[in-house]
Amino acid sequence: MDENKQETAEKIVSEMMLGKDAFSLWMGVELLEVKPGFCKIKCIVREDMLNGFYIAHGGITYSLADSALAFASNAHNNKAVSVETNISHVKKVVAGDILTAECTEKNLSTRFGIYEVEVSNQKDEKVALFKGTVFRTGEKWVH
Amino acid sequence: MDENKQETAEKIVSEMMLGKDAFSLWMGVELLEVKPGFCKIKCIVREDMLNGFYIAHGGITYSLADSALAFASNAHNNKAVSVETNISHVKKVVAGDILTAECTEKNLSTRFGIYEVEVSNQKDEKVALFKGTVFRTGEKWVH
Amino acid sequence: MDENKQETAEKIVSEMMLGKDAFSLWMGVELLEVKPGFCKIKCIVREDMLNGFYIAHGGITYSLADSALAFASNAHNNKAVSVETNISHVKKVVAGDILTAECTEKNLSTRFGIYEVEVSNQKDEKVALFKGTVFRTGEKWVH
Amino acid sequence: MDENKQETAEKIVSEMMLGKDAFSLWMGVELLEVKPGFCKIKCIVREDMLNGFYIAHGGITYSLADSALAFASNAHNNKAVSVETNISHVKKVVAGDILTAECTEKNLSTRFGIYEVEVSNQKDEKVALFKGTVFRTGEKWVH
Repeated sequence: MDENKQETAEKIVSEMMLGKDAFSLWMGVELLEVKPGFCKIKCIVREDMLNGFYIAHGGITYSLADSALAFASNAHNNKAVSVETNISHVKKVVAGDILTAECTEKNLSTRFGIYEVEVSNQKDEKVALFKGTVFRTGEKWVH
Repeated sequence: MDENKQETAEKIVSEMMLGKDAFSLWMGVELLEVKPGFCKIKCIVREDMLNGFYIAHGGITYSLADSALAFASNAHNNKAVSVETNISHVKKVVAGDILTAECTEKNLSTRFGIYEVEVSNQKDEKVALFKGTVFRTGEKWVH
Repeated sequence: MDENKQETAEKIVSEMMLGKDAFSLWMGVELLEVKPGFCKIKCIVREDMLNGFYIAHGGITYSLADSALAFASNAHNNKAVSVETNISHVKKVVAGDILTAECTEKNLSTRFGIYEVEVSNQKDEKVALFKGTVFRTGEKWVH
Repeated sequence: MDENKQETAEKIVSEMMLGKDAFSLWMGVELLEVKPGFCKIKCIVREDMLNGFYIAHGGITYSLADSALAFASNAHNNKAVSVETNISHVKKVVAGDILTAECTEKNLSTRFGIYEVEVSNQKDEKVALFKGTVFRTGEKWVH
């Protein structure tokens, strides 16, 4: 039975990745949109995600961006693993903030993909800028 | 009353930072050693920290490294905030692994500090390599 | 005498920066467009810019991107210095290639600016993706 | 005829890489030491390497570090290409400064190598901190 690329992307990310991703689920990550090479997800910042400054731990914003990277890159039906990621935290995030991470593909080759993730809050202010490189293993998620 | 620099470093990190850092506490972060510009912390990887590949979410290793960066840099009694951080995940981390993050200072100027964090598992194998830059605000934690 | 922001940007970058930048001039860098927070420059790759693989040394592409970063960020008439920069080389560059670097501002705060530079060749293929953070000193170029 | 690993490393870097690397030669790069996974090189900063601030263009320090990365990683006799590199410029470099770049291996797997390069001046002050990831193609330099 044939499935088109969009259906495959949704199945991989929704069922095979996010549905089994205990930590993303702990964070309350919701999938807003996915297609090959693109992903948009969100989560609401809770008090148990804050650090000693009473702002969101840098790891929360990173984790959201890193999940967006994993979803966007794997949505090509080619298992991809993170090689290098970097993040700049540009605005404080507090409890109650609604964060959206939008991952776009900047370059794709046989072996590597480079992605940008912008994380914004409910006022559409950027809170973090993330760049990530993945290695594409060539292994498929769905045959 | 005077406290020496080491006592101040321990007070800042143990009481004022880690003790109030809800997310690091959720991760079970334990302080092993701290001094101005240096920090060593650990945590044990649990099933709720895994992603859909059943390995630790990249955000867990990042969060541990990022906490180590915050602790080491703030232990100078000069409030420091992250400007840019990057991480390379080099080995899979599974549930039950004991991760240690060791943060060392590579360069310190009036305004900026650059740090390296190596995250290792219980077999002393490196699992992630992290580099971080902080901006030193000049504000003290303890007067 | 008043000059508007655009004239100031052009004066800073063309006369005060590029005109006195011996290394960018060695590279044959030409200014195509500049405005506060944005810059587009180009250069032609020569044989003395190649490495032992007979492709452009990674430092050439980096240098072009780094110049674009410096020009775009300083065009705000606020002296800015590089804090951290990263680059991914995604396509080989050979002698005769015409490289264009386009720098756009991703975020600007009082103290920091974050920029993206895309370097492309004459076929409009991306050859490198660069992200840079600058510290804004508050010192003006033109009073 | 057999050559040991050290002789192979020296042959690759000295003859096959640096000897044919026009841009590194323009910079006056000298090889001080090489072994598999390690390299130390130097160069003297000239006036034609400066930017409009009359300090070394960021691309000069980057280029030196990038050459050190290429030499150290290829000295394993496994052709390696840069995937991602980042650099923090921490001290001004002026004409006449003697820069030394020392590249050490932080992690090596079948496909990837991660390296750190510290660039120092003649007073043994750090001027730049560089981290780089290479992809190891599996192709040999010398059979």
